Amino acid sequence: MLSGSQSGLETEKLAIDHSLEEFLTYATQELSAIDPYLQPISAALREFLAGGKRLRPLFAVAGYIGAGGSLESDAITGVHRAVVSLELLQACALIHDDMMDGSDTRRGAPSMHRRFEREHRSRSGHGESAAFGNAAALLIGDLALVLSTQALNQSGICTEQAEQVNPIFDLMKVELMAGQYLDMHAGSRAHVPVADALKIAIYKSGKYTIERPLHFGGALALCAPEHREIYSEYGIPLGIAFQLRDDLLGVFGDSSVTGKPAGDDLLEGKRTALISYAIEHLAGAEVEEFTANFGNRSATPDEISRMRALINNSGAVEFIEKIIEEKTTLALEASKHPRISVDGQELLAQLAIAATRRSA
Amino acid sequence: MLSGSQSGLETEKLAIDHSLEEFLTYATQELSAIDPYLQPISAALREFLAGGKRLRPLFAVAGYIGAGGSLESDAITGVHRAVVSLELLQACALIHDDMMDGSDTRRGAPSMHRRFEREHRSRSGHGESAAFGNAAALLIGDLALVLSTQALNQSGICTEQAEQVNPIFDLMKVELMAGQYLDMHAGSRAHVPVADALKIAIYKSGKYTIERPLHFGGALALCAPEHREIYSEYGIPLGIAFQLRDDLLGVFGDSSVTGKPAGDDLLEGKRTALISYAIEHLAGAEVEEFTANFGNRSATPDEISRMRALINNSGAVEFIEKIIEEKTTLALEASKHPRISVDGQELLAQLAIAATRRSA
Repeated sequence: MLSGSQSGLETEKLAIDHSLEEFLTYATQELSAIDPYLQPISAALREFLAGGKRLRPLFAVAGYIGAGGSLESDAITGVHRAVVSLELLQACALIHDDMMDGSDTRRGAPSMHRRFEREHRSRSGHGESAAFGNAAALLIGDLALVLSTQALNQSGICTEQAEQVNPIFDLMKVELMAGQYLDMHAGSRAHVPVADALKIAIYKSGKYTIERPLHFGGALALCAPEHREIYSEYGIPLGIAFQLRDDLLGVFGDSSVTGKPAGDDLLEGKRTALISYAIEHLAGAEVEEFTANFGNRSATPDEISRMRALINNSGAVEFIEKIIEEKTTLALEASKHPRISVDGQELLAQLAIAATRRSA
Repeated sequence: MLSGSQSGLETEKLAIDHSLEEFLTYATQELSAIDPYLQPISAALREFLAGGKRLRPLFAVAGYIGAGGSLESDAITGVHRAVVSLELLQACALIHDDMMDGSDTRRGAPSMHRRFEREHRSRSGHGESAAFGNAAALLIGDLALVLSTQALNQSGICTEQAEQVNPIFDLMKVELMAGQYLDMHAGSRAHVPVADALKIAIYKSGKYTIERPLHFGGALALCAPEHREIYSEYGIPLGIAFQLRDDLLGVFGDSSVTGKPAGDDLLEGKRTALISYAIEHLAGAEVEEFTANFGNRSATPDEISRMRALINNSGAVEFIEKIIEEKTTLALEASKHPRISVDGQELLAQLAIAATRRSA
């Protein structure tokens, strides 16, 4: 049972952390039983997972409680064990995403491929260190995906719960990979309309981070289909707002808080709705100036500042902040639906704020 | 029901192909419903899967029949739909393996990353074509892994079958990723003892290709634990023999049959048991000559011939062929266990030959 306000989220996060720790202990033993050479893999995965905000498992727990599910206080349940699978899926997505983006850091630490590149170099391993790092990160990402399914299968949920949750989890994973591909594909096109960028935001992040985790939790509570529709009315707009906040942080975020280099998305040349809007609304000469540096990994701090200024001048920041505000309001209204339990409404309101007013 | 001899394997392969086709039609619709830009992904996955030998699904069907399971003749069953997941898992393994190895071809066609590299180049896409190809192959491999779970969950097997098969499939996938990592890690070490190379062969290929698919099939027939042990007695030695045949083909195989460049493993510098034995048994000067070219991707045909001759001179080929022979004999003896059904024994005997006397 939830004691209301901030402590509800905190209590659930602790239970999720505990379940994740429990599962990782199992996975470490499973790997060590195969070969002691695998120890660095479990250690790396454990450290990688240590810093997460657990946003997707928390949305799933909120979805469960909102659909009338109850959790014993101070107890780790099958529901907590099941939602851990969402955090392992997210680890796969981040590890592989960093490889694709060539990102050096994640949460202030070296990204997985850089970590193993260093490990290879430090022992003067045979072959190229960068190739070793990429191969290791590829396999550790795959492993996280495999463990994600294992965590769900071992969670101890009942057959009816599994029958409801499996189709949602499967579809969610397909949507994630599809969204990642669409995102990557957009980066290879000369121009991406704002509408396309928003669609990608929906699949890559909106559905994946919020709507589907809520459906996942609802399925664990054996909710009716109409309940899922209510969650979509909350989840889709909030998902867009979440991704748009991410896009703003990718350009303007404080690197000491985001754990990513300043202006990371500018260096990467990421075609977000923010960027699409700016390009569509800048004058011709400004567009040329912007695109000359956009996607240049060796852009200087001055060049980054100039790109930021151009985005600001285009009106893109106000435009995006306005959408975030509108979408968050829509989500908050949807969360007050009478079919959502009172405790669930409380959690959803807290999570809406956490997802859209964050600084990392 | 099986009509005995070759036709048993052929009939089952057709049913597996049919189930795979059915699932891919579903997956294509699922992806197209998300975005038409995903069409090239489903097309690529479908073409990639067209050429497979279906070895792992066939071992699973043999495991099912051997444990007393029955299949209606000329009908596609939940069992056929379930074993398709093994072929999708294999697609993920191959797509990601080719990325790690930097292989240009697979089954005579461009590997997945090369295919998308070309696609990017042909439309003069934004950014680097090679990076786009790698990112696309990474995500398509992830997608194949995700679809693998979806195929199993949607197969229509009953709850008891799912409860038996899920833990085996989960462990099998962990072992696969672990084996791939150990294999890759071995390539970064200066020396790999024959014993280590054999252990890697067991996890990467033996358990994954034969033992676990048999257990998978046995689980679908709700077999007793003792039945699994019999399958291990057949599967582990045969798995080693299978991998050792693979190692010989990687060095001496006819490229027009393997669909890989001649001496591919030599160009890649793959530390197989064959290579470990050769290095351990050649004279010092020969080892130096061998290692000077081993792992050199631009080795000339003459240099490849010379490496092959050195391996031959070391006695490694006889050594490996002898192990293949011994392990296959052990497997064939194990397949005659009275607890394995007569039809199952027949299939296992045929598969043992198919797995170890192949030329591709």
